[in-house]
Amino acid sequence: MEKKELLYEGKAKRVYGTDEKDLVIQEFKDDATAFNGEKKGTIVGKGVVNNKITSILFKLLEENGVHTHLVEVLDDRNMLIKKVEIVKLEVIIRNIAAGSFSKRYGVEEGVVFDSPTIEFSYKEDALGDPLLNDYHALALKLATKEEIEKIKNYAFKINEILKKYFDDRNVILVDFKLEFGRTSDGEIILADEISPDTCRFWDKKTKEKLDKDRFRRNLGNVESAYKEMLKRLS
Amino acid sequence: MEKKELLYEGKAKRVYGTDEKDLVIQEFKDDATAFNGEKKGTIVGKGVVNNKITSILFKLLEENGVHTHLVEVLDDRNMLIKKVEIVKLEVIIRNIAAGSFSKRYGVEEGVVFDSPTIEFSYKEDALGDPLLNDYHALALKLATKEEIEKIKNYAFKINEILKKYFDDRNVILVDFKLEFGRTSDGEIILADEISPDTCRFWDKKTKEKLDKDRFRRNLGNVESAYKEMLKRLS
Ligand SMILES: Nc1ncnc2c1ncn2[C@@H]1O[C@H](COP(=O)(O)OP(=O)(O)OP(=O)(O)O)[C@@H](O)[C@H]1O
Ligand SMILES: Nc1ncnc2c1ncn2[C@@H]1O[C@H](COP(=O)(O)OP(=O)(O)OP(=O)(O)O)[C@@H](O)[C@H]1O
Ligand SMILES: [Mg+2]
Ligand SMILES: [Mg+2]
Repeated sequence: MEKKELLYEGKAKRVYGTDEKDLVIQEFKDDATAFNGEKKGTIVGKGVVNNKITSILFKLLEENGVHTHLVEVLDDRNMLIKKVEIVKLEVIIRNIAAGSFSKRYGVEEGVVFDSPTIEFSYKEDALGDPLLNDYHALALKLATKEEIEKIKNYAFKINEILKKYFDDRNVILVDFKLEFGRTSDGEIILADEISPDTCRFWDKKTKEKLDKDRFRRNLGNVESAYKEMLKRLS
Repeated sequence: MEKKELLYEGKAKRVYGTDEKDLVIQEFKDDATAFNGEKKGTIVGKGVVNNKITSILFKLLEENGVHTHLVEVLDDRNMLIKKVEIVKLEVIIRNIAAGSFSKRYGVEEGVVFDSPTIEFSYKEDALGDPLLNDYHALALKLATKEEIEKIKNYAFKINEILKKYFDDRNVILVDFKLEFGRTSDGEIILADEISPDTCRFWDKKTKEKLDKDRFRRNLGNVESAYKEMLKRLS
């Protein structure tokens, strides 16, 4: 499958058209941004790692009954995916307090929740991706009630699958962001990526961060953390 | 019933103890604040109006099966209320986009929702009362699942009663904030106040604002708007 026109260039990926109208190619870049684009940088080799990690996890999810956009890995940085209309909700599952949750609600990082929390933010960079609830999502017509239910069920299911999978690899899945899309026949499937860019991973023993927080917080060893995550999954 | 010690002085009200341990007195002040206390001022006569309006509306709600903290109006500025442990959630019902909703989600003021939305914010001034969802409220142990359900049902019911009531008085109920509390035997009841301080009221014909937005946005005629609201209810 060959790349045709560039359809969209995001902060971490490019999306290209193909000969088939329902298929696009997702290319993973080494560019990194944080704080809604305020902080910019490069994480050498990140695109290759994220492409691999996303493909491993999406295959795992498919095997467990979660439909995803992944069709086939093309090469180091490119995967063929089903084109979807992205639901304008960023879906965040949290098992442990960290990041914006800790800041927003004054809860120390590391507090383990009795059960996982889910939250939506309105995927709209110009507004800073504000938090919203189900009622807001409906009022803004971002999704139907049925779609929201489906997305929630998927997200919690994905969390259970991934938590176990990472735990077996001595990694704590602290929180992560998902995006879902509608296929041309209206099905809701998992899209975008799951990688150290979109998850918080802590080493089970040392609690060392193995994710984009190393970049966000200038902790150093960013590249090696991404590579370590890939190693644990391979 | 006599006022004993001052238990709490808030931005708009004072709460005093009484001889009975389950009863307190709520005194309405003329002080007005906005934007989380950044803007301060006085609205002459506001306390008297808000005491009257709150008592009219709480009686109306009681007649319609909503349990409230109101025991009895004592005088112009004071009401005797059941002491509760306030649930640390500000409960906001919106029928029409306005204020923080419009700003946060980029929706023009005046857009009417297909159905009312409800939202919770974490009642914690130091954090700026951040928005949260049911999962967050549970994780922060602000209320039980059952309490959250009860509060939501109450809030929507209150909205239906008040919408109709104000509509009959040529007022559009745009949005409003509620607080709930737990009585000493664990019942959830409506507390605090319902007044032009805590609601957005628009005149049905002219769309003129008859609430605290006149103060927030320096629109003038603040006192007369509060008085007009009381007149329409009397
Ligand atoms: N299967 C898919 N079909 C169409 N678009 C997709 C699909 N999967 C992901 N996308 C979208 O492609 C883009 C990927 O680029 P990237 O992640 O770099 O964007 P971004 O800078 O994060 O911006 P955005 O705020 O749009 O996510 C995103 O907009 C994402 O929503
Ligand atoms: N029945 C009740 N029993 C106990 N406290 C109550 C009751 N009803 C209301 N309160 C509380 O009394 C206070 C009223 O004061 P006021 O509304 O001026 O506070 P405020 O400045 O808005 O601060 P806050 O952020 O605490 O609401 C509030 O904290 C409110 O939650
Ligand atoms: Mg993205
Ligand atoms: Mg108050």
